Amino acid sequence: MAKKIGLILCGLGRMGMIHFSNILKNRTVELLYIIEMDLQKAQKVISDHGLTTTEAVHVDNAKETINKERVDGVIIATPTDTHEKLVLQTLEAGKHVLCEKPLSFEFDAAVKCYKIAEAKSLVLLCAFNRRFDPQIRKMHSNLSHIGKLHSIKICSRDAPRPPLSYLKISGGIFHDCIVHDMDMLRYLTGENPSTVYTLAHCHDPEIAELKDVDTVFVVLQFPSGVIAHIDVSRECVYGYHQTVQVYGDKGSMMSDNPRQSGLMLNGGQRSDDIFFSFHDRYTVAYSLELEHFFKLIRGEEKECDIKAKDTLQATILSQAAEDSFKNGCVINYSEYTKHKFSNIGI
Amino acid sequence: MAKKIGLILCGLGRMGMIHFSNILKNRTVELLYIIEMDLQKAQKVISDHGLTTTEAVHVDNAKETINKERVDGVIIATPTDTHEKLVLQTLEAGKHVLCEKPLSFEFDAAVKCYKIAEAKSLVLLCAFNRRFDPQIRKMHSNLSHIGKLHSIKICSRDAPRPPLSYLKISGGIFHDCIVHDMDMLRYLTGENPSTVYTLAHCHDPEIAELKDVDTVFVVLQFPSGVIAHIDVSRECVYGYHQTVQVYGDKGSMMSDNPRQSGLMLNGGQRSDDIFFSFHDRYTVAYSLELEHFFKLIRGEEKECDIKAKDTLQATILSQAAEDSFKNGCVINYSEYTKHKFSNIGI
Amino acid sequence: MAKKIGLILCGLGRMGMIHFSNILKNRTVELLYIIEMDLQKAQKVISDHGLTTTEAVHVDNAKETINKERVDGVIIATPTDTHEKLVLQTLEAGKHVLCEKPLSFEFDAAVKCYKIAEAKSLVLLCAFNRRFDPQIRKMHSNLSHIGKLHSIKICSRDAPRPPLSYLKISGGIFHDCIVHDMDMLRYLTGENPSTVYTLAHCHDPEIAELKDVDTVFVVLQFPSGVIAHIDVSRECVYGYHQTVQVYGDKGSMMSDNPRQSGLMLNGGQRSDDIFFSFHDRYTVAYSLELEHFFKLIRGEEKECDIKAKDTLQATILSQAAEDSFKNGCVINYSEYTKHKFSNIGI
Amino acid sequence: MAKKIGLILCGLGRMGMIHFSNILKNRTVELLYIIEMDLQKAQKVISDHGLTTTEAVHVDNAKETINKERVDGVIIATPTDTHEKLVLQTLEAGKHVLCEKPLSFEFDAAVKCYKIAEAKSLVLLCAFNRRFDPQIRKMHSNLSHIGKLHSIKICSRDAPRPPLSYLKISGGIFHDCIVHDMDMLRYLTGENPSTVYTLAHCHDPEIAELKDVDTVFVVLQFPSGVIAHIDVSRECVYGYHQTVQVYGDKGSMMSDNPRQSGLMLNGGQRSDDIFFSFHDRYTVAYSLELEHFFKLIRGEEKECDIKAKDTLQATILSQAAEDSFKNGCVINYSEYTKHKFSNIGI
Repeated sequence: MAKKIGLILCGLGRMGMIHFSNILKNRTVELLYIIEMDLQKAQKVISDHGLTTTEAVHVDNAKETINKERVDGVIIATPTDTHEKLVLQTLEAGKHVLCEKPLSFEFDAAVKCYKIAEAKSLVLLCAFNRRFDPQIRKMHSNLSHIGKLHSIKICSRDAPRPPLSYLKISGGIFHDCIVHDMDMLRYLTGENPSTVYTLAHCHDPEIAELKDVDTVFVVLQFPSGVIAHIDVSRECVYGYHQTVQVYGDKGSMMSDNPRQSGLMLNGGQRSDDIFFSFHDRYTVAYSLELEHFFKLIRGEEKECDIKAKDTLQATILSQAAEDSFKNGCVINYSEYTKHKFSNIGI
Repeated sequence: MAKKIGLILCGLGRMGMIHFSNILKNRTVELLYIIEMDLQKAQKVISDHGLTTTEAVHVDNAKETINKERVDGVIIATPTDTHEKLVLQTLEAGKHVLCEKPLSFEFDAAVKCYKIAEAKSLVLLCAFNRRFDPQIRKMHSNLSHIGKLHSIKICSRDAPRPPLSYLKISGGIFHDCIVHDMDMLRYLTGENPSTVYTLAHCHDPEIAELKDVDTVFVVLQFPSGVIAHIDVSRECVYGYHQTVQVYGDKGSMMSDNPRQSGLMLNGGQRSDDIFFSFHDRYTVAYSLELEHFFKLIRGEEKECDIKAKDTLQATILSQAAEDSFKNGCVINYSEYTKHKFSNIGI
Repeated sequence: MAKKIGLILCGLGRMGMIHFSNILKNRTVELLYIIEMDLQKAQKVISDHGLTTTEAVHVDNAKETINKERVDGVIIATPTDTHEKLVLQTLEAGKHVLCEKPLSFEFDAAVKCYKIAEAKSLVLLCAFNRRFDPQIRKMHSNLSHIGKLHSIKICSRDAPRPPLSYLKISGGIFHDCIVHDMDMLRYLTGENPSTVYTLAHCHDPEIAELKDVDTVFVVLQFPSGVIAHIDVSRECVYGYHQTVQVYGDKGSMMSDNPRQSGLMLNGGQRSDDIFFSFHDRYTVAYSLELEHFFKLIRGEEKECDIKAKDTLQATILSQAAEDSFKNGCVINYSEYTKHKFSNIGI
Repeated sequence: MAKKIGLILCGLGRMGMIHFSNILKNRTVELLYIIEMDLQKAQKVISDHGLTTTEAVHVDNAKETINKERVDGVIIATPTDTHEKLVLQTLEAGKHVLCEKPLSFEFDAAVKCYKIAEAKSLVLLCAFNRRFDPQIRKMHSNLSHIGKLHSIKICSRDAPRPPLSYLKISGGIFHDCIVHDMDMLRYLTGENPSTVYTLAHCHDPEIAELKDVDTVFVVLQFPSGVIAHIDVSRECVYGYHQTVQVYGDKGSMMSDNPRQSGLMLNGGQRSDDIFFSFHDRYTVAYSLELEHFFKLIRGEEKECDIKAKDTLQATILSQAAEDSFKNGCVINYSEYTKHKFSNIGI
């Protein structure tokens, strides 16, 4: 048994607490520090869980803490606008990093992070959680059952609608939500699309005031002939509705919403609810994502499941979908990347 | 009990036989003539069913037969290229008509048919069968359950792939298939769209040779804010897959594929198949469509469920979707109708 | 085309109207007479459907009407206590008969009916409708999929609870309901059981006053090793719940409740209702049952699907189940039949 | 934060490894010792998981290890024939115990264990895992939805068939399997039954040689009027099939088999498999069972979810079911317990 991986967890918000709980379940890692703005909160969490070897550190002291020798990896789940700085500090300290998306609001900054990580042979895992969902993985590894792929339809309808405070800093529906669906499309097709076209509407007046939209359809054509559709909504009143459908010349496959339980009423007239939020739907995915990070650090796995090009292309695609909507036109994706994102070498 | 409705059935192909069988189940109508190219076939059908008061007539004698006094209505299920002529003969004879779609390959001819029917107060029912499906009707009449409508997704995947002989005269996937989905969208939204955009691909080499496509996505924006998606394929290997999904601010509803039976294997791991073709899936719809025709003739119902504007707009929309695909651009639908279809008064 | 089958329909109650409507859909038979106590009702039904060759006859004149030369078959759907007399009159007149169950309240009378029918080579079809249900037939013909049969579970829960007036003359839950489940067991196993044991309870005070029960479990052992369970209830508030499950060494199969439509709400959290009564659930079965009767009359099918032994054994089994309940003991079925039903030659 | 609970885990077989993994996920307990016959295996497991404070101890030294001061609780997952001795040693040492069922093959020995535990105010948790399954708990806490309870049907079909080596020491299908279903019935009804009757058969020649059976139906009547059915099989080829159905005067509820994922093929014609064994089906239940044990030890919960009477009555009921089968008669349960199990004070 190798030495335990020394970890820092940055942020104890909703995602931070998910990571915290998953870290505790693994005896081969050691949570050395929790970096938080709210030091009292961090100390309470440490004491509530009887952690005797974990220390709470204020975010102002992040840099020197990250540089401590026993630290091997840093998990970043702080507010989005702090990601870039923390990722850079971690990489510069020569430590591995798992960061919630996005790495940065600036595309060039994200590219820079990946270049440093590559140069220093560090793990930089941007947390596209759905790729670690066992159901999505099973779909991916069984794609051959449907023969040659013809079409993909992704439906991602959020529940509950995020609070206004979050929506304001979310980066908008394209970068906050649709980026995941773009990643799914690239994961399932293994291609970048040739065209992107978006329809959208805003029904919610609060979201309209932010100049954002709440209901979006994107259609994409891929070089292989595959055509794809993304259906995204900010609010689905009956639960966190996320499905993926693929059609091929030998059949179709669907990743349907798992249910909270196998209970049913009245001969199946009523099934149990689907899950109500991402943390309930993707519980296992978050745990496997973290395991992947640990295995990469230990060298037990060599290749990061989310590569630079995955993060960067999904980001560009979200931007292309947003631009298509704003300009009401079809985006030729190869032209688009040529003009806007040249020389990134991905 | 009023006098029996005197009927002519034109054509004993697949659709003709469906109508034939439904006519026989109704004791308030009388099948006077069957008009067919293949007189022997018509005579055999008549004799096989012990019909003593039905006469077989060659299609060359259609006109004088339609003009016979006892004839009240004519059901046209002949090859598509004969529709227009038979419809006009029927209307000119002052008889009611139920005709399989399309009324004509020429848009102006279809308009003309409706103008004659209106002038003479005759029923002209163009058979958009899905509007008579009890499941679709139940969805329509329960739309308020989902609150304000936000999005619609229609999936229509044919089985089996039609034979090449049919595909050649089908008018192409847009006019043969997508016209039904366009009608569904208008039925469910009560609106005409403001924009239409199409992606398509052809995987089947036989269809490619016909310069047709086999896989189509259309997205449409409606003035009310509703956005819609149509997913159509010429071949679905596991059955005739037709679903409609609607999402609103209070929930969602889906018209899923009914199954051949409620049998299942191994605790639900295997359900019975969906239906394999339109005649099995829409058995009841065809019967209700015919009943509607009879009730219109008898004056028991006043308003035709498929109006001139329904047929004509669905036709224009299919053409717009095809033009969008061929030109790779977004169609502004109100501009489109203004330039191409002015003065039709619908 | 052979001459039309001349028919009498006796009774225009709920079952009578189902048969009436199915008779009208078939152009190869002719409904000559409707025999009813309520002559006015019969005349109204005839006139409402524009039947010009059907005559209403009062039940007092049943005998001479049945004897008319043009009559080939008689369908008996009158109140249960009149079955025996009408069946005997029909058979004595040398006419074929389809009779709703039971043929008689007296076992010996039922035996006598079958003996006459056999002697005169007449069809005597006792209407165990479930045997004609396409779903049940498909299960039966696919039984080999589950390998060697090990167990069967039948669940038959009625909706709505029949009115008290009917319950009083129903013959009790064992003879009115469970007789169908006994027939299903014999149909699926091809055996008579070796033991029968019953548990029952009455929750409904109105039914308790009739000395009847409303909730019954029967377990049966078969010589082949198969064990079976019947679960019957007089009232299922959410619909007419009827399932059959079979387990074998290679898997299991279930005949689940078909639904009114393929509509669902909120991602499947709510499915459409199951059917609410036997006439909606078994629509197709009643029609196929009648077609079978016609084919037997015409000699197109030689063997009656419901044989004397089927009707009689199902009756004895229901009695055995009732006796087991009343005596609180396990019935040895071969002993039971030996002592109570000797010499019936079935 | 209180001091960590000091634990011993006895046995690293299949159940032992499940408990081991769940113990590791909890930072508020400390696994002090693993007691095993195979010391090398225990040492390897300790080292593989990087446990630096856990010691492997041979089962011969169980007694003195259990008596160590830092030990608070002992989890017993050794072969069945060692349970009684280890439970007694633990209780005599004044330590809490969670033991896999059965506590003993001897009923009186089980009674004695409970008496000691009660006298010393120690936790004695016999691991009826299904009571901790969230789905079963949700059913239990929502029972009022179906109104007054009328009937219960439990189906428990094992997969895969246990190996012969296990079957030989399993105690037979009644004590190994049906005891769980008996516990479920008592959990859901809150009653002991008044009568028990069993049908059974053996299809598997290997099991027949052990004088055991592989297919069992039990029916039970309860004083409240509830009737119940248990359907048990040793082998279900398509997975670990466990369902519970309850019917009341206001509706029905079913605990159906959860599926491995929400994937489906071909429009739902194929769903993903159900789980293949108890450890996959009851993953969460085992974890919650252990949490309950810890909370009882810490005094955070006062009442054990599995009481003496639950374990003992389920045991007697299994015996009654077996006796009913062997004697072919209906067991009057109150008579039965009076004669066979007097003076146990439960």
